[in-house]
Amino acid sequence: MKVYRDIRLLRREIGRLKRKGKTVGFVPTMGFLHEGHLSLVRRARKDSDCVVVSIFVNPVQFGPNEDFKEYPRELKKDLALCKRCGVDMVFVPGVRSMYPEGFSTYLNVEGLTEGLCGAKRPRHFRGVTTVVAKLFNIVSPDIAYFGQKDAQQAIVIKRMVKDLALPVKIKVMPIVREKDDLAMSSRNTYLDRDSRKQAASLHKSLKAARELYKKGEKDSKKIISRMRNLILAEKDAEIDYIVIVDPETLMDVKKISGKTLVALAVRIGKTRLIDNVILN
Amino acid sequence: MKVYRDIRLLRREIGRLKRKGKTVGFVPTMGFLHEGHLSLVRRARKDSDCVVVSIFVNPVQFGPNEDFKEYPRELKKDLALCKRCGVDMVFVPGVRSMYPEGFSTYLNVEGLTEGLCGAKRPRHFRGVTTVVAKLFNIVSPDIAYFGQKDAQQAIVIKRMVKDLALPVKIKVMPIVREKDDLAMSSRNTYLDRDSRKQAASLHKSLKAARELYKKGEKDSKKIISRMRNLILAEKDAEIDYIVIVDPETLMDVKKISGKTLVALAVRIGKTRLIDNVILN
Repeated sequence: MKVYRDIRLLRREIGRLKRKGKTVGFVPTMGFLHEGHLSLVRRARKDSDCVVVSIFVNPVQFGPNEDFKEYPRELKKDLALCKRCGVDMVFVPGVRSMYPEGFSTYLNVEGLTEGLCGAKRPRHFRGVTTVVAKLFNIVSPDIAYFGQKDAQQAIVIKRMVKDLALPVKIKVMPIVREKDDLAMSSRNTYLDRDSRKQAASLHKSLKAARELYKKGEKDSKKIISRMRNLILAEKDAEIDYIVIVDPETLMDVKKISGKTLVALAVRIGKTRLIDNVILN
Repeated sequence: MKVYRDIRLLRREIGRLKRKGKTVGFVPTMGFLHEGHLSLVRRARKDSDCVVVSIFVNPVQFGPNEDFKEYPRELKKDLALCKRCGVDMVFVPGVRSMYPEGFSTYLNVEGLTEGLCGAKRPRHFRGVTTVVAKLFNIVSPDIAYFGQKDAQQAIVIKRMVKDLALPVKIKVMPIVREKDDLAMSSRNTYLDRDSRKQAASLHKSLKAARELYKKGEKDSKKIISRMRNLILAEKDAEIDYIVIVDPETLMDVKKISGKTLVALAVRIGKTRLIDNVILN
């Protein structure tokens, strides 16, 4: 396994492989890898000749009052995990090489990025699409992998790839959960034992939504109301949003019919968590 | 010479060539080709194994009150010119394949696009960078060619390529002029005989700027004042801007020293013309 910090060296090596007809699978991450990330890596390992993982805590996707500085970092452990999973190349760029002096080019997916997480994090997705597009330009993957946990992110990236005819296939892999069903996230490390218990309400409420739906409930309002009650039963829980939406347009669905995304963001104390489930 | 309307077919063919190690030179145009465009094509022909020209009048870079509908189109003649210049592939996409339903992804170079032409055409460069990035994704050129006449456009595209690490080299080729020194532009077709005479004032004023500079004048204000007088001597001329700026940052230069861009945009009646010269 090789570790690259330099854009040119990585690109040269990947160019060499591509000219030999090798395929490239790519997993972009912010590091502090968990089983969610590793499930993407393992899938890439199955699909492609060469697996590239990037580790870059992207400053541009954090708001001014968000947790860029506190975001957990553990490069050594990440590299060991990558090696164990059969990764071929890890790309660990510095902020200055991703954002050279005078950097001023941003990609934005309009509309889709304005609701849900985008409503409270107004420049978040602009930062995500910009860095992901740049990483795609550097790595030129045949397939790139994203987790379903960040449902809106996956939808936004798929839209970007389609709109700009980016020559890459996007695969979105299922949420991986802890033993207590909490969706895996690097930010779970912020939770103390008590918060962690309260955080279980996210998944509980999604499970309740699925059960209500299975029993025949199609009215989004009623389902959301039940979810809200379950979450607000926890003393430190603050709901950012609970939505039932079309999984491509993210438009609100009033009566559920066909494939539908139930997604939520909840703060437990200072920690913001997201989770979702697809009905049908 | 092959003509492609379909993104996938073009991409497949270019992929085949690239795997054989062939290099691709690309000239994106809006058609109605003139010697300015052809100078880019000829340069591409010298530099690369395969020359691709795109012809696409990009609706997204026109403002609501601009000349998208009137913009001159003459595909047959364009194709004949391309053939004569040894072009290998011409890409003529439809609006729907460049902007599929639900299209919502835009690239924007902030700062650089806000002055000069961007001041009066607020979404123009966002449309240019979006379509050029998409064309690069489709054609995957090794080198792409732009004309110096659109000086700000060239600067913006270079910035975009650098910022996003797009795997393409940008070459900017000199302005090609008519016999009367008017910078070649598809929009020159809008000018009647009288307007055409008045349009000569653009180049006259740039020539005057160069001569003043050569005689030792370093004060931008004085040079601009002389240029302004020369242009406003024409009865239908309205100045949009005359600037003397740094050719990378587009920041105003007060005392000229080192490489400097003198650029202007002038309306002669309804026709908006641009031209520029580089000092030093």
